[in-house]
Amino acid sequence: MARRGGGRAARVRERTGAESGPVAPAFITRRMMPHDLLTPDGLDVIEAKADQILAEVGIDVNEPEDRDEFRRAGASIDGARVRFEPGHVRELARTAPSEFTQHARNPDKSVVIGGNHVVMAPAYGSPFVSDLAGGRRYASLEDFRNFVKLTHATPWLHHSGGTICEPVDVPVNKRHLDMVYSHLTCNDQAFMGSVTIPERARDSVEMARIVFGADFVDEHCVILGNVNVNSPLVWDNAMTGAIRAYAEANQAPVVVPFILGGAMGPVTLAGDIAQAHAETMVGVALSQLIRPGCPVIYGNFLSSMALRSGSPTFGTPEPAIGSLVVGQMARRVGLPLRCAGAFTASKLPDGQAMAESTMSMMSAILCGTNFILHSAGWLEGGLTMGYEKFVMDADLCGALHRFLEGVSLDDDQFAIDGFHEVGPGNHFFGSQHTLRHYETAFFDSTTADNNSFEQWRDAGESRTEERAAARVAEVLAEYEPPPIDESIDAALLDYMGRKKSSMPDMWY
Amino acid sequence: MARRGGGRAARVRERTGAESGPVAPAFITRRMMPHDLLTPDGLDVIEAKADQILAEVGIDVNEPEDRDEFRRAGASIDGARVRFEPGHVRELARTAPSEFTQHARNPDKSVVIGGNHVVMAPAYGSPFVSDLAGGRRYASLEDFRNFVKLTHATPWLHHSGGTICEPVDVPVNKRHLDMVYSHLTCNDQAFMGSVTIPERARDSVEMARIVFGADFVDEHCVILGNVNVNSPLVWDNAMTGAIRAYAEANQAPVVVPFILGGAMGPVTLAGDIAQAHAETMVGVALSQLIRPGCPVIYGNFLSSMALRSGSPTFGTPEPAIGSLVVGQMARRVGLPLRCAGAFTASKLPDGQAMAESTMSMMSAILCGTNFILHSAGWLEGGLTMGYEKFVMDADLCGALHRFLEGVSLDDDQFAIDGFHEVGPGNHFFGSQHTLRHYETAFFDSTTADNNSFEQWRDAGESRTEERAAARVAEVLAEYEPPPIDESIDAALLDYMGRKKSSMPDMWY
Repeated sequence: MARRGGGRAARVRERTGAESGPVAPAFITRRMMPHDLLTPDGLDVIEAKADQILAEVGIDVNEPEDRDEFRRAGASIDGARVRFEPGHVRELARTAPSEFTQHARNPDKSVVIGGNHVVMAPAYGSPFVSDLAGGRRYASLEDFRNFVKLTHATPWLHHSGGTICEPVDVPVNKRHLDMVYSHLTCNDQAFMGSVTIPERARDSVEMARIVFGADFVDEHCVILGNVNVNSPLVWDNAMTGAIRAYAEANQAPVVVPFILGGAMGPVTLAGDIAQAHAETMVGVALSQLIRPGCPVIYGNFLSSMALRSGSPTFGTPEPAIGSLVVGQMARRVGLPLRCAGAFTASKLPDGQAMAESTMSMMSAILCGTNFILHSAGWLEGGLTMGYEKFVMDADLCGALHRFLEGVSLDDDQFAIDGFHEVGPGNHFFGSQHTLRHYETAFFDSTTADNNSFEQWRDAGESRTEERAAARVAEVLAEYEPPPIDESIDAALLDYMGRKKSSMPDMWY
Repeated sequence: MARRGGGRAARVRERTGAESGPVAPAFITRRMMPHDLLTPDGLDVIEAKADQILAEVGIDVNEPEDRDEFRRAGASIDGARVRFEPGHVRELARTAPSEFTQHARNPDKSVVIGGNHVVMAPAYGSPFVSDLAGGRRYASLEDFRNFVKLTHATPWLHHSGGTICEPVDVPVNKRHLDMVYSHLTCNDQAFMGSVTIPERARDSVEMARIVFGADFVDEHCVILGNVNVNSPLVWDNAMTGAIRAYAEANQAPVVVPFILGGAMGPVTLAGDIAQAHAETMVGVALSQLIRPGCPVIYGNFLSSMALRSGSPTFGTPEPAIGSLVVGQMARRVGLPLRCAGAFTASKLPDGQAMAESTMSMMSAILCGTNFILHSAGWLEGGLTMGYEKFVMDADLCGALHRFLEGVSLDDDQFAIDGFHEVGPGNHFFGSQHTLRHYETAFFDSTTADNNSFEQWRDAGESRTEERAAARVAEVLAEYEPPPIDESIDAALLDYMGRKKSSMPDMWY
């Protein structure tokens, strides 16, 4: 029985039994379907409200070239303000594919994004890292490479991610080169490129061309670029520039409003969802005007706020339930979805962190997210990448793999022979049915302690994060880089060297 | 807008605004519906397999009087073994109500169990307690009463529970009297009675009659009794005796198989679910043979096992996904459901504990559980009741209240006036729409720290459980007992005194 989702590597490993660790898929093909919270009538209302926002209030698009795209497409332009008739952005977005393959350097690790597939990637964008031994500190390139290595070695992550943490020891204008080089050499999974300014996005594409070949890149998606709206209702030129750079190269922008309810959007969920839908669809429409049919991801990032302090909160119930509607909107318009992640406001990988992260990751699963950015490592509202948190979250990702398998009703799963063999009052421990299924029966967490109190006490009363710290050290010690053609590596180094020497260091 | 579920108290508070803390309902009426994992065809298969187990293997019923009930009803009896034709137990169970009210001493706190309602109760049955200051130790009556007080003071728990922890400083044959007395005096919510032997169940009913009146108790449910099957496929006489004691008194047994997959059932989920369904339905059928129409709850407790050690595991993905099917089976037969809880194998309220508990509580919500026993406090596979874990779990219960509200599409939730007022690029902080909704916008956790790193650091770098410990002390210090008629209290004390002096202490 094929218990796990797609991917040639998984099938090969299942066939050959060549691996002793968990059999990991290249990505998940879910059997537990997303949850539909609202009826289609409810979705009609939300889309109508999003259309009303775009028609009455409009959205500011700072780059004249982009406004020209929208003008030519029939939008109404008033200064920077762009307004759309109801239904117009959805019509413009219609050429975007509902599902696409992002190719990895290792073809066995290419991922399908969209449909019933789920791809998990590490967290993104934190200036700090923390671990039990060293506490919280600015992230370095070494940290960045450590997280790429941890991702490569983690069976439950399918994607190398992007700016996992900011290597702040490398100049601002050059660090994207080191990050892309690390993704392309310390890991062989798919990855995300730079978005901070369009030239860096183009560098990311150039380096991918070295690895995959220019013709291949023009016809296949090999990079995602995470692009944020300046909510509420502003598309600035850095971000539309990144959409342009990736769309022109037939690569996939991930179009993401980041809305902290009460600040960058209403305090009420329905308004945030309608606003986010409007903002996302404008970005998707732009990508399709630039290159019709280019892959693009419908992104979303909803958050809430602590009422007493005004601080942002993460992993709370409002965005979790809101995500279910966001997922329905993405399916309604037929686009792959990025939503939710292992969010928390906690500064430590403690109880708060894992309660919040688990609620948010469960919402990602329930809402049908296809690309779960921030699946592992997130702490402190995204300001810190935690080493121990990373492996604790990775275990949660593993558990969610199993959750998404659903429940098999294959005849042997009912163990009728086992009931006949065992009978009332006896245990199944040694039964033939148990022996047949024992090895694959249950997900095995690397950080959970399931021993008796006495065993746990005598072993030193460890906390989860202490076991996780040991796991981090073990995985990094055992890490082996995936093979790469020497000439490709040399060409990447050459490109990076030339780019770096072509400009002075910039530190801001 | 009535954002929260039923209960007269909640409505009164909403109308009068008399309370400064969170507006808590007597119970939840969910707007986010349960998730249907399987198609009706899949449920047919499971029911057929459960029927096959009962027809071919059968179930041992140790008490001759109970076997007589089943014989008269048409089952086949062979020694202790009872076998049922396919469809027979479901037919026998048909008189059980799909929904019933359990009355509380305070009528405003009566709960509806079944349908779209959710009732959350504290954990049950641990011999130990733990807290940060004192570590793990045997539970005492003082601990028991502390947890009843904490439950009373927690807005997100709707039910006083039962054997929250074992007061091991009270003789085994007398402690049920102290527990029932504590439930009836330290709290005014609904509660669970003793089940360990039938006489103690009858004592529980007698004490309820003192409070509610004998006639009222004969016609209304005022007690639940949690009754475990000896899985696999054995009903022993202590447990059927408890079913009998409660059913005869028109009170509600909660019929619960506890299946650790690979030990008391197959290692495969489908087999466990079919077995549990068979076992539960036999218990439900017995309750209906004893008193047709008496309230009864379809219970379930699935667990998994650590592959390397054989230790039981809790809060893992297999029971979480299995619960979704269990919920469908309960709805199929039209019975209220008890399933899942804040489970964990962790010895501490740490990251493992909250990841596992959150996954399991989310599964309780998803599968449509009506009565969530073990909603707060559970540690170490149920062996320990944790003080800090209790308030951390209670916060999770509060978050799930909000999750179950779903997303309101009331017109004002879309904030169209807010978008017109704020416009692109500006913040919603001071907008009229934000001011209208600010106070009720987001769930407010008592134990989460959402402050900046610097604020958190300067305040002492607290962990979640340290904040929870402070919260425990605060709640217990502020606790005020609910009022009770002095003559009723005296009658309860008199009953308890007479029962205690009628028998010598027993310590095992």
